[in-house]
Amino acid sequence: MLSTLGFGSLEELSEAALPKSIYTTAPLDLQAAVSEEAMLAELRALAAKNTVNKSFIGQGYYGTHTPGVIQRNVLESPAWYTAYTPYQPEISQGRLEALLNFQTVVADLTGMVTANASMLDEGTAAAEAVALMRRSNRSASNDAVLLVDADVFPQTLAVVNTRAKAMGIPVLVHDFDGALPDVEFFGVLLQYPGDSGLVRDIAPVIAAAQAKKAVVAVAADLLALTLLESPGQLGADLAVGSSQRFGVPMGFGGPHAGYMAVRKGLERALPGRLVGVSKDAAGNQAYRLALQTREQHIRREKATSNICTAQVLLAVMAGMYAVYHGPEGLKRIATRVHARAQAVAAAATAAGHTVVHANYFDTVKIRIAAGSGHSAAELVAAAHGAGYLLRHVDHDHVQIATDETTTEADILALAALLDNQPVGTRDPETAKDAAAVVLPAPARATDYMSNAVFHAHNSETQMLRYLRKLSDADYALDRGMIPLGSCTMKLNATAEMAAVTWPEFSNLHPFAPASDTVGIVEMATQLEAWLAEITGYDAVSVQPNAGSQGEFAGLMAIRAFHVENGNPHRDIVLIPTSAHGTNAASAVMAGLKVVPVATDGFGNVDIDDLKRQVTVHEENLAAIMVTYPSTHGVFETEISNICAMIHDAGGQVYVDGANLNALVGLAQPGKFGADVSHLNLHKTFCIPHGGGGPGVGPVAVGAHLAKHLPARELGADTSVGLVSSAPYGSASILPISWAYIRMMGPDGLRLATQTAILSANYIARRLSEHYPVLYTGANDLVAHECILDLRGITADSGVSVDDVAKRLIDYGFHAPTMSFPVAGTLMVEPTESEDLGEIDRFINAMISIRKEIAAVQDGLWPAEDNPLANAPHTAQSITQEWNHPYSREEAVFPAGVDPRAKYWPVVRRIDQAYGDRNLVCSCPSIEELAEVF
Amino acid sequence: MLSTLGFGSLEELSEAALPKSIYTTAPLDLQAAVSEEAMLAELRALAAKNTVNKSFIGQGYYGTHTPGVIQRNVLESPAWYTAYTPYQPEISQGRLEALLNFQTVVADLTGMVTANASMLDEGTAAAEAVALMRRSNRSASNDAVLLVDADVFPQTLAVVNTRAKAMGIPVLVHDFDGALPDVEFFGVLLQYPGDSGLVRDIAPVIAAAQAKKAVVAVAADLLALTLLESPGQLGADLAVGSSQRFGVPMGFGGPHAGYMAVRKGLERALPGRLVGVSKDAAGNQAYRLALQTREQHIRREKATSNICTAQVLLAVMAGMYAVYHGPEGLKRIATRVHARAQAVAAAATAAGHTVVHANYFDTVKIRIAAGSGHSAAELVAAAHGAGYLLRHVDHDHVQIATDETTTEADILALAALLDNQPVGTRDPETAKDAAAVVLPAPARATDYMSNAVFHAHNSETQMLRYLRKLSDADYALDRGMIPLGSCTMKLNATAEMAAVTWPEFSNLHPFAPASDTVGIVEMATQLEAWLAEITGYDAVSVQPNAGSQGEFAGLMAIRAFHVENGNPHRDIVLIPTSAHGTNAASAVMAGLKVVPVATDGFGNVDIDDLKRQVTVHEENLAAIMVTYPSTHGVFETEISNICAMIHDAGGQVYVDGANLNALVGLAQPGKFGADVSHLNLHKTFCIPHGGGGPGVGPVAVGAHLAKHLPARELGADTSVGLVSSAPYGSASILPISWAYIRMMGPDGLRLATQTAILSANYIARRLSEHYPVLYTGANDLVAHECILDLRGITADSGVSVDDVAKRLIDYGFHAPTMSFPVAGTLMVEPTESEDLGEIDRFINAMISIRKEIAAVQDGLWPAEDNPLANAPHTAQSITQEWNHPYSREEAVFPAGVDPRAKYWPVVRRIDQAYGDRNLVCSCPSIEELAEVF
Repeated sequence: MLSTLGFGSLEELSEAALPKSIYTTAPLDLQAAVSEEAMLAELRALAAKNTVNKSFIGQGYYGTHTPGVIQRNVLESPAWYTAYTPYQPEISQGRLEALLNFQTVVADLTGMVTANASMLDEGTAAAEAVALMRRSNRSASNDAVLLVDADVFPQTLAVVNTRAKAMGIPVLVHDFDGALPDVEFFGVLLQYPGDSGLVRDIAPVIAAAQAKKAVVAVAADLLALTLLESPGQLGADLAVGSSQRFGVPMGFGGPHAGYMAVRKGLERALPGRLVGVSKDAAGNQAYRLALQTREQHIRREKATSNICTAQVLLAVMAGMYAVYHGPEGLKRIATRVHARAQAVAAAATAAGHTVVHANYFDTVKIRIAAGSGHSAAELVAAAHGAGYLLRHVDHDHVQIATDETTTEADILALAALLDNQPVGTRDPETAKDAAAVVLPAPARATDYMSNAVFHAHNSETQMLRYLRKLSDADYALDRGMIPLGSCTMKLNATAEMAAVTWPEFSNLHPFAPASDTVGIVEMATQLEAWLAEITGYDAVSVQPNAGSQGEFAGLMAIRAFHVENGNPHRDIVLIPTSAHGTNAASAVMAGLKVVPVATDGFGNVDIDDLKRQVTVHEENLAAIMVTYPSTHGVFETEISNICAMIHDAGGQVYVDGANLNALVGLAQPGKFGADVSHLNLHKTFCIPHGGGGPGVGPVAVGAHLAKHLPARELGADTSVGLVSSAPYGSASILPISWAYIRMMGPDGLRLATQTAILSANYIARRLSEHYPVLYTGANDLVAHECILDLRGITADSGVSVDDVAKRLIDYGFHAPTMSFPVAGTLMVEPTESEDLGEIDRFINAMISIRKEIAAVQDGLWPAEDNPLANAPHTAQSITQEWNHPYSREEAVFPAGVDPRAKYWPVVRRIDQAYGDRNLVCSCPSIEELAEVF
Repeated sequence: MLSTLGFGSLEELSEAALPKSIYTTAPLDLQAAVSEEAMLAELRALAAKNTVNKSFIGQGYYGTHTPGVIQRNVLESPAWYTAYTPYQPEISQGRLEALLNFQTVVADLTGMVTANASMLDEGTAAAEAVALMRRSNRSASNDAVLLVDADVFPQTLAVVNTRAKAMGIPVLVHDFDGALPDVEFFGVLLQYPGDSGLVRDIAPVIAAAQAKKAVVAVAADLLALTLLESPGQLGADLAVGSSQRFGVPMGFGGPHAGYMAVRKGLERALPGRLVGVSKDAAGNQAYRLALQTREQHIRREKATSNICTAQVLLAVMAGMYAVYHGPEGLKRIATRVHARAQAVAAAATAAGHTVVHANYFDTVKIRIAAGSGHSAAELVAAAHGAGYLLRHVDHDHVQIATDETTTEADILALAALLDNQPVGTRDPETAKDAAAVVLPAPARATDYMSNAVFHAHNSETQMLRYLRKLSDADYALDRGMIPLGSCTMKLNATAEMAAVTWPEFSNLHPFAPASDTVGIVEMATQLEAWLAEITGYDAVSVQPNAGSQGEFAGLMAIRAFHVENGNPHRDIVLIPTSAHGTNAASAVMAGLKVVPVATDGFGNVDIDDLKRQVTVHEENLAAIMVTYPSTHGVFETEISNICAMIHDAGGQVYVDGANLNALVGLAQPGKFGADVSHLNLHKTFCIPHGGGGPGVGPVAVGAHLAKHLPARELGADTSVGLVSSAPYGSASILPISWAYIRMMGPDGLRLATQTAILSANYIARRLSEHYPVLYTGANDLVAHECILDLRGITADSGVSVDDVAKRLIDYGFHAPTMSFPVAGTLMVEPTESEDLGEIDRFINAMISIRKEIAAVQDGLWPAEDNPLANAPHTAQSITQEWNHPYSREEAVFPAGVDPRAKYWPVVRRIDQAYGDRNLVCSCPSIEELAEVF
């Protein structure tokens, strides 16, 4: 590969590719690499420092049993976890169906019409709901406040506060037991059941608020909704929450799938991803992402949310948990959870304490009797000593939340503890659920999950086959290369994945006592230190649970810095037109104003335009956001000058870390002039994409911004506050990146980067005879990805990038990134994980496709009937009558495809517009299908 | 389903199906069922009673790193572990290729021409080698002895002794340091490297023995063979051993794949299964089991071995370990293992001890210096205290065997221990492999593993995709029903599988001190007690690591019983002609003579013929072997009378437990008159088939036979001795059956049996209009399986059972059992794990196939060109020119097949005879391929 490029070594290549001003050969100050086994031994030692006590804390995080068949065949299956976001729906029908199931579960349980395919967590879902309420309430004045239920989870309030502050929205916490406050409010956020466990009939509150033209969002517990009437039925406009307790381990706070669902009329305002039903070229039902034009990458500074990554893998798990148990199973689980809570309440009463709320689902708030011989704190401490975590509310209150994992033995132990007696002294018979179960009100009267899918896979045999069938429809890294520019689809090694399911990490409650979580905090702190060293920054926070959140946190730090320095007016962010759309969306969310900077003919920041903009906006300049190497896949040589120019003008430099895979070990943004970056651990640092999440988006900053990182814990008084619900965000997947760095060491990390650059340049060089490579940098080199420009070819032949992308499916590939950052192009990123054999297979496929395009250009095949226009071809399509000018064999086994290793898409090209016009975003009923088709 | 059969309840059905004389409604005396989580908690408590100390015991069992990609994507993947034996090669190309890799690795490393697809363990492989040497040496007299190397593993000698005694072969243990003994010997069994660690140049011994017309087998360590010249090159006739250390955990003794490989000329004498290359109907290369006519199920009492189940899943793992590391990687590992051993030797010398053998691979035998301050026993005890297991040889000798997992830290600790110092006081620098590595002799000069497959998958990315590609070619339970009569392919629940990979079970050496293995022994002992309760016997041994071994052990117990009672002449075993072929083969192996008993027109034992045979053979009658319910799938009503008749004649009753899935909870063989049974945990008790193993074949006996069960430990002086190398056989998979029984409880077990009987009868009733059901019992009911008689249909139409079986592939099914026990029939067993939807799907497919047959009968389709004769159809076949009288769509998407969930076979019908005529049993070279095709 080097000789194809004319270099003698990787060092030579690296030196030629990167600007001298940033290139370094100094080794990273990290420990030398260790083997898989040695790494696992170290990680096990960290895990052993945690103590997994049984949590009754509740507060949005609950024990749950992950069904083994789901753990093994989703969470631990490469077919699911190595998949990409389903932007190519024809090769993603399995996970799209799984997500449609998730949406249906959420929509049905909440009583809403449309649910999206997951949010990052409950806190950010609530914050997004606030934004949605604000923008959808056109009648409210700009000064209208947000009313937040005093009984909302404290972490939800914290995240809402952070976001509301950025957006300039005043927040008023209100106890809805009383009358509505006499202020103008645009929206209401209720918790149902409440943080205190109380289940309130929210219908009157909703009606009263709506009478005042407010929009009402309800944060609701999905399991409780199997017994309680749904927010939708009670009149709410939208619902948010978490699906964690549907089989997803607590994981010290994440990842798990938050949700948002809306009533009819608000579906086009939903943030995040939404799966919908459409049809394919053969007229068959097919799934795809709906209403994509809402997404931030398209709307840029006009975006209403910056969410990009969702929590697909976890949403799939939660959806499958519901599919597996079915509505009756879920109701049975919920009833048992409630019966256990009832037993706790009875035990508390028997011990002389007071149960504060009579109407609860799973959480019992207890006022400790004065004469009981122990305070709330003493009870909590005694329970901790016995292996139980209770929630300490205040001097004389504790809360105990039961869940799916609560056993009779637990109830017995809790009863003893409440009675100030040693655990283990009670007669087990007293724990039997003697009393009749009295379900909480308002009792659920409306139906849910009636679709066939929730009644057809309730045995393990059925579930296993359903999961296999769905995953067989999909293309993931376990089948072949996914050369997606900017997305860095690389090996997710099994050794890196191992610790995710260790109970010492996965069964920790995020608000467990610090003494229980020593190991995971140490691991996360080490990872933060390593990431700081790799990026050259001084401080890192892993709290942001997606790149979008890291970006928001980074911009909030910049904003806080300017405020701190007496420059609150600095609110202009310069963003090159080639940037990721998220940059602009995040800037707006952080309360900043976006000014675009032009790109020159070589794809670089137009320095002259930049100078102009800096001059114009010098007074109010907050920052520049650049991606490095650029989204064009080029190492811009002017990067150091750009940093200097911004600093000279009093601005801060934000380097988007999306392309860090081209820098690790070769250059450090924190050292070459940047002040902030966010990273994507699911790109460079090997967290699998999971079909579109989980992601982790740490924010890295220079020393001057360190104090403006997200708060380290709930309740800390910091400038920015929490950006995610849990202090360490998606903590349970951090071991993946920890393991990667530990096993690579400084030399391995550098070698990986060099190899990624080598592979990208090899592809660019080999394909440049066939497709123009749009941009290159110094020495005609690209960075870790390259853009193939098809615009001329399209103009000549009528063959579009879409056609090429879909034809690649027939060749057994996932398409490169389409039309980003330049419409009509394909951006290819091989990463260091693909060997020469696979890279050559891709190159040969692209060359072969070029020949097919030539055949169209030459008129051998008509523009409207050729293997490209008709791609992808299903097996079904070749059983039918064949009137095409090419053969069935050319259709499905083009050059280089081994018939014995053929990937078969299950649908033909999908009609995107049709689905958007006929929006169906939950498992369709027979009637809906009849209507759509 | 009940109403189709005209019954009001499962109880009614059971009562009608089973003879009154054996039917019971008394609940099994087992604990009530617990949930998955509660079961796992109990199992974790048992696991916690084990102590995993680091083993340096060696003796055939070594620490090894299972590559994560193999653990997750083979051992823990349902696509591999739920597969059946590849008797239907068209839907088994993935595992057949994996096994061909295994055979190639073994053949290459041992320097032999042909290796089989695995043996049960090294001990049984050696015993099979003895039998092979005996029968292939036609020049030796009947009195000729077997010479066994004094340096053979003790457990191998024990198993060889058990088997040799049964066959009447005298065994002479000989130290090959001296001259050959002056006796006639037919065969020699050498160990290379020896049990003592010594690597001897075996070439002169082999030559001298062969000069005396003896056949020479070498038990060899595969990893050592990457450095040492191969047995084949040194002249041996065959090689046996274990592939455990190729990535398969020790598991307290198993399961792992033993191996056998032979020189040219002996391949047709190989026992066990052998994968070979052939071609399919399209002329393409295809794999299948070769030389099947050698197998016991065909040769019955003329069989030369009773092996049936192999260790496929473990052979796949070991083969993939070799594919992953490649020849260079294996050599690197071996060199490191040897370097560590050299460091141990250096440390021993430095501490004043004597290294006994200078030429070793991994095992260092050390004579403890008299003045060292500790005896061998004290050293072993001190090491145990420090977490290390050394092998205690005698008063002044220990052995230390290094392996892939040995670290520098271990060497440091061992050095301290040898020097009678506390561990942890040494300077780490002293552990660096300072001395140059001196490899053992005779150094390997011959090449190995040169085939491309061993050089194409050496990264995790490549390996993952290779595993996915292979598994995608196969049909296993994760795709659909495998309705194999007699094989009981039922759910292998994830919760049952979980403990297999827990280190507390998987990392135990079988000869670890008893104090380390308390939990696993307790678990195995509980399982034995539960199995005794379920079967109604008094004692059970789980040692036999396959049904065939259990059968052998059971017959040996009967033989020992007769000898004990002064009746050594009782050596006649009556076996109905409908019996599994293994019955007869095992009887012969146990030194018994087989007399067949006729079957009557209803498929039952012909009572009149039985009376005749009992009368004729009364004097010498040892036993009857019957399967119950019969291999015809019928509850014979005369079973109690048969038992009485045999007992009256002084014989014992052996009930083959193959069909126990129809009895559990409804009847107990040990109570209705049987004296012995073997069970198949991989049938009734949910151990997955693994593509043809592992299996576990416990033997269950009445109290009078308990003392004749296999020895409880190595070295115990018992009548039968060891039947497997490890005391608890395939111990690490016993938790699967333990978990199953624990989660089912007495009620669940009974309900499962009733459901299995219901499902079989439902199929029989529904299909009986379309295919005659050959045999039924009382009330026109079958047991848990039914035989569909196609002989008349075949005579009328020319459509064979083969055609139907292969056509079922096009419909997305694995065929039922073909032509067993009656040629020209299909035997269908749905088990309790298949729901009505899947059962109806199968019934509908069979009805649809019947219609296709009718079309042939009616002349609509010619006999030689129709969807049945041409089945299965690949995707490739429908891309080609199509001149068939049926459509492409009819070919691949017949009625009921969902094109989106289509299983595609990768080859067409395979020419079995062609492959046997042109035998290629390792990865073919280009030249071989050219020759074969």
